[in-house]
Amino acid sequence: MLIKIINPNTTLSMTAKMTDCARAVASADTRILGVSPAMGPASIESYYDEALAVPGLLEEIISGEDEGCDAYVIACFGDPGLYAAREVANGPVIGIAEAAMHYASLIAPSFSVVTTLQRTCGMAWHLAERYGMERFCRNVRACELAVLELEDPHSDARRIITDECRRALDEDGAEAIVLGCAGMADLCSAISDDIKAPVIEGVTAAVKLAESLLTLKLQTAKRGDYARPLPKLYSGILQNFGAR
Amino acid sequence: MLIKIINPNTTLSMTAKMTDCARAVASADTRILGVSPAMGPASIESYYDEALAVPGLLEEIISGEDEGCDAYVIACFGDPGLYAAREVANGPVIGIAEAAMHYASLIAPSFSVVTTLQRTCGMAWHLAERYGMERFCRNVRACELAVLELEDPHSDARRIITDECRRALDEDGAEAIVLGCAGMADLCSAISDDIKAPVIEGVTAAVKLAESLLTLKLQTAKRGDYARPLPKLYSGILQNFGAR
Amino acid sequence: MLIKIINPNTTLSMTAKMTDCARAVASADTRILGVSPAMGPASIESYYDEALAVPGLLEEIISGEDEGCDAYVIACFGDPGLYAAREVANGPVIGIAEAAMHYASLIAPSFSVVTTLQRTCGMAWHLAERYGMERFCRNVRACELAVLELEDPHSDARRIITDECRRALDEDGAEAIVLGCAGMADLCSAISDDIKAPVIEGVTAAVKLAESLLTLKLQTAKRGDYARPLPKLYSGILQNFGAR
Amino acid sequence: MLIKIINPNTTLSMTAKMTDCARAVASADTRILGVSPAMGPASIESYYDEALAVPGLLEEIISGEDEGCDAYVIACFGDPGLYAAREVANGPVIGIAEAAMHYASLIAPSFSVVTTLQRTCGMAWHLAERYGMERFCRNVRACELAVLELEDPHSDARRIITDECRRALDEDGAEAIVLGCAGMADLCSAISDDIKAPVIEGVTAAVKLAESLLTLKLQTAKRGDYARPLPKLYSGILQNFGAR
Amino acid sequence: MLIKIINPNTTLSMTAKMTDCARAVASADTRILGVSPAMGPASIESYYDEALAVPGLLEEIISGEDEGCDAYVIACFGDPGLYAAREVANGPVIGIAEAAMHYASLIAPSFSVVTTLQRTCGMAWHLAERYGMERFCRNVRACELAVLELEDPHSDARRIITDECRRALDEDGAEAIVLGCAGMADLCSAISDDIKAPVIEGVTAAVKLAESLLTLKLQTAKRGDYARPLPKLYSGILQNFGAR
Amino acid sequence: MLIKIINPNTTLSMTAKMTDCARAVASADTRILGVSPAMGPASIESYYDEALAVPGLLEEIISGEDEGCDAYVIACFGDPGLYAAREVANGPVIGIAEAAMHYASLIAPSFSVVTTLQRTCGMAWHLAERYGMERFCRNVRACELAVLELEDPHSDARRIITDECRRALDEDGAEAIVLGCAGMADLCSAISDDIKAPVIEGVTAAVKLAESLLTLKLQTAKRGDYARPLPKLYSGILQNFGAR
Repeated sequence: MLIKIINPNTTLSMTAKMTDCARAVASADTRILGVSPAMGPASIESYYDEALAVPGLLEEIISGEDEGCDAYVIACFGDPGLYAAREVANGPVIGIAEAAMHYASLIAPSFSVVTTLQRTCGMAWHLAERYGMERFCRNVRACELAVLELEDPHSDARRIITDECRRALDEDGAEAIVLGCAGMADLCSAISDDIKAPVIEGVTAAVKLAESLLTLKLQTAKRGDYARPLPKLYSGILQNFGAR
Repeated sequence: MLIKIINPNTTLSMTAKMTDCARAVASADTRILGVSPAMGPASIESYYDEALAVPGLLEEIISGEDEGCDAYVIACFGDPGLYAAREVANGPVIGIAEAAMHYASLIAPSFSVVTTLQRTCGMAWHLAERYGMERFCRNVRACELAVLELEDPHSDARRIITDECRRALDEDGAEAIVLGCAGMADLCSAISDDIKAPVIEGVTAAVKLAESLLTLKLQTAKRGDYARPLPKLYSGILQNFGAR
Repeated sequence: MLIKIINPNTTLSMTAKMTDCARAVASADTRILGVSPAMGPASIESYYDEALAVPGLLEEIISGEDEGCDAYVIACFGDPGLYAAREVANGPVIGIAEAAMHYASLIAPSFSVVTTLQRTCGMAWHLAERYGMERFCRNVRACELAVLELEDPHSDARRIITDECRRALDEDGAEAIVLGCAGMADLCSAISDDIKAPVIEGVTAAVKLAESLLTLKLQTAKRGDYARPLPKLYSGILQNFGAR
Repeated sequence: MLIKIINPNTTLSMTAKMTDCARAVASADTRILGVSPAMGPASIESYYDEALAVPGLLEEIISGEDEGCDAYVIACFGDPGLYAAREVANGPVIGIAEAAMHYASLIAPSFSVVTTLQRTCGMAWHLAERYGMERFCRNVRACELAVLELEDPHSDARRIITDECRRALDEDGAEAIVLGCAGMADLCSAISDDIKAPVIEGVTAAVKLAESLLTLKLQTAKRGDYARPLPKLYSGILQNFGAR
Repeated sequence: MLIKIINPNTTLSMTAKMTDCARAVASADTRILGVSPAMGPASIESYYDEALAVPGLLEEIISGEDEGCDAYVIACFGDPGLYAAREVANGPVIGIAEAAMHYASLIAPSFSVVTTLQRTCGMAWHLAERYGMERFCRNVRACELAVLELEDPHSDARRIITDECRRALDEDGAEAIVLGCAGMADLCSAISDDIKAPVIEGVTAAVKLAESLLTLKLQTAKRGDYARPLPKLYSGILQNFGAR
Repeated sequence: MLIKIINPNTTLSMTAKMTDCARAVASADTRILGVSPAMGPASIESYYDEALAVPGLLEEIISGEDEGCDAYVIACFGDPGLYAAREVANGPVIGIAEAAMHYASLIAPSFSVVTTLQRTCGMAWHLAERYGMERFCRNVRACELAVLELEDPHSDARRIITDECRRALDEDGAEAIVLGCAGMADLCSAISDDIKAPVIEGVTAAVKLAESLLTLKLQTAKRGDYARPLPKLYSGILQNFGAR
């Protein structure tokens, strides 16, 4: 099976990193295609960035359908464009926040999310509510690290994140940690070893959910909200989006 | 004060109609600027359409800041891009679903939404939850009219919508109706007269909320989630969005 | 249009103060009538006070109907008698807690309420729940100032309240403040300037909501819960309430 | 122990009936004092009636404290003035809706309320939410019987109510019935026999809860919201309420 | 009437203690039968212990039916086997967590639970949600005392629990305390005297609820979820459970 | 990896059937061990059956630890003993209701559960709430088929279930179906083909979740609620449960 991982920002080092992480957990018969969109922001740290990452992401879903992709992973913790992508794709589409939170709820009574900037914490709470995971989420904590600092080998990101994870266990009473940024994917097992508690990271988690759905022959329901978009006129620089 | 009403779809007859409705209720010292984006879909009837309407909408918010706009109304019942717009604008930004639901909750114990296509009902429920209005919302009912049928003078839209409103009162036990599409703005008072119950329409409602916030000197909070987006590199056909 | 602001307590200096605040934001064609009931408590700081403020308040609604009032504001943060008033009045009736919370939810991701005595905080939470605003309300904080201390020019009320507002921003993570007493109406803009965050006050907020509803020709729904009370025998010192 | 049952309306035949029902279940060492207030409405069928029943009810609580009452039952299904009464009384105060819903939740997975007029159903839902009983409440159904029709021996009330109870079992899937009016107290066991399901009536239920609290030596908490009201000036025909 | 109190653990000193407490509050015409099962754990401090206490508990319910028991109390704060017991018994079955939380909600705006080990706090939250009492529950606090330490006269249990109760009042803002273990039944009034706030203990509370239900002639609803279990084959050491 | 599927009832034909279904979806390197307990009920159709299935289930978990099992599936839609099993096992433990509901929420906006007897519908709702899946669950529908009728080749089970699934799509507006009994595992793809909508079945779903967790090296959190049970004395026929 062919799973396309779309990093909705345009920072290719991050895309490469998360593709590596995905391949490390994928089944032998799964091919992972990791991409970034041709348009949009270099990192996603606001509703504005998130909204403007979606057209490029949808372009990758549309092209993925032609490329024979069986499923998709949206690899940004805000799960941007998730429902729109489900309308367009034939196969399953999984967001990494969604995947991480679901798995966390299966192995621990509660979890805390440890993410980048404070201003994005509200988004994570919104997602937790939307997915039914609010009742398991003790807290959403920010490290005040910008997304791209995670790409800087000289930043102190790993230590800062690990410390925040420890505080989540101690202060929130959480029993597990969800990492709140795809850029943290490579830190998952090291942090888990350090804090001696489960740490769930969404990219790998979403790949396994997507594979599972494919094995179970479960596709997105096409009656109701996730039916294919109606064809219609699109204008301006987005006019090609009408030509699916 | 200058209030910009952004119809996030590109159908100008709809924009003109809602601008007229807005002007009819605006205060004497309010100027209404009604626009549609230069890019995006002709109508919004899916998550896909909604996501792709947002870049054009944000472009109008950005230009509005230069044009001296004091506040903005997002005139599509899905309130697309609402939080992103709040980050970018200095003044208040109001969605029409938000406005209509809030006013409805002030004059009736409960309301039902009457909207266009069944596939959009889930979106309206999501908004009701997000705004705290779920507890007032008895039902979201579709007429199975496409948005652009509302623009067709030969369609039977008014009768169909009125009938659905009546069913909402009778079957749902709602005491008021919220019209679930900006394209229904001109039908509001006629339907209210017919069904003898309050009918709330979001475009006019949002204009009055925006005016009120300006009179009360209340601007969007700029600490936290609605702080201005961080400047960063944007790529591809969306690159200008990085140049604010 | 004629809007009657009813301060449900009998302290006329407070009534005068809030009437001034209301007039400062009212539209040119709005007349504000500020009154206190002829019976009831000098301040409202308990369920007991609140319950006993309602007959006098309803008397003012009933007389307001004869006086040609178009809408009513209930100017106590507990919104006493709101639903009963809606049954009796033909025009809209708005509570100040309701108004302030609704506006706060439009300009900030969350708010904290800063009120007078700790023992009234539970009431504010009840209202937040009733209005669907609980999800936006981070905290309800008391200053331990009695209502009438707000009328004492020698009290340190402004400083105490401002300090509590600052703590709300810092400790609760709220992005906006709702002032929890009509007696704080005159402090609103000064505190907002001091803390550099939006501060919403209910009397002025409710006036603008009432005006807006009137402009939108939206009256209280008279089917269902807010239908006019059935005529019936009333006894004792309240017998006149049966003679509407 | 002395338990005062306050029928908050002034219809003495109803007071007598519920007093009889209460005595039939009271313990041997319990004295029941059944009263109606000296002021207020003949029946309670709106928020307006409810609000205006409260002063008379509170007068009975205040006098009850002098009379040596150990606990109080508020015998109207809207539980009017419950929190105010708890502030004033030293002993427990129980509302009949509260009592009936609590007991129902102990013997059945869910219940439906069968009450008088449709316009009061919203009140019952509000109470269910306030008491945490919403999750057990399948429906609130009206018989469209006025309260005082229950007092008319020639009305067909018993049959109408029984039929509605049967529909509640069949259509709502409820396993038990809560009768939604103190005036139905005498019908409880007959209806239960007819429909072959538990029927809970609040007056008798509240008496048993009050007795139990007294035996357990549990008094209303006097820290926080239910602390005694602060003394203050009361004006007009309600001035005596300041003189407690 | 005959009420069987089942301590689901096998520690007979605890059974004796709670039986004494129950008798102290029971009505003159109530006989209390206090028992422990013949099988199962010596104390209940995990989901595992709880699950394995249930067969013995159900055996006591089954034998109770033959013994003429009119009602049952499940005297462990996890209320193990409550719904299964309701299916088997003809009369009411009350859990002590359920009883204590319900009474607490009648006399205080909120309560905190003070229990034994931290690992059981989640169970108490689950019960609070299930019973609709979550909205009244401010916190569940552990003393880190094992259940059997409560039976040790040389432990410092009473002081430790009292201190935690005081913290609950001060830090949680609770107005009443629910004791979270049947082994604390004898400490209830002493702690209440010490902390000057209501302290509710479930064994005595449940006895009074059970007595009340019997007086009100309210039995468990036998349509729906609590209908008698269908007869069927049981195997192995549990085979007798099929022979009811 | 070795995954043990525990059918908590003692009907071996059902165990064989679900083991086959599991093997059909398992990865090449997964061994499936399908078992039924040595004690307990032949089918689970009440809280009573469920409670008495748990000791046998836990015995299988305990022996599984010695057998080198890496993960466990609890193959009854009530997910009996789930939390207790998580305490005892080192590896992940997944319930089939949990698994099916989680997957359903990833591919459809909502689902309905189609199960056996009406009396078990409440259990399914409880689980949906506990897992955060209530917001996705439109309805729980019973076919009024006993569990063991599913094992009878002459029963009309497949047609009856398919018809109920169709009604769920049409009447509930659900976009996907969750089958509410492990005994329906073999009908999943046929029904999906018939109704042209996704049908999710828990046994296979749980196997894939368990495999995924193992690949992701995610074990149950052992701090907090799921810590290993404390060793203690167990009595009677259950005494061996103390000897872990």
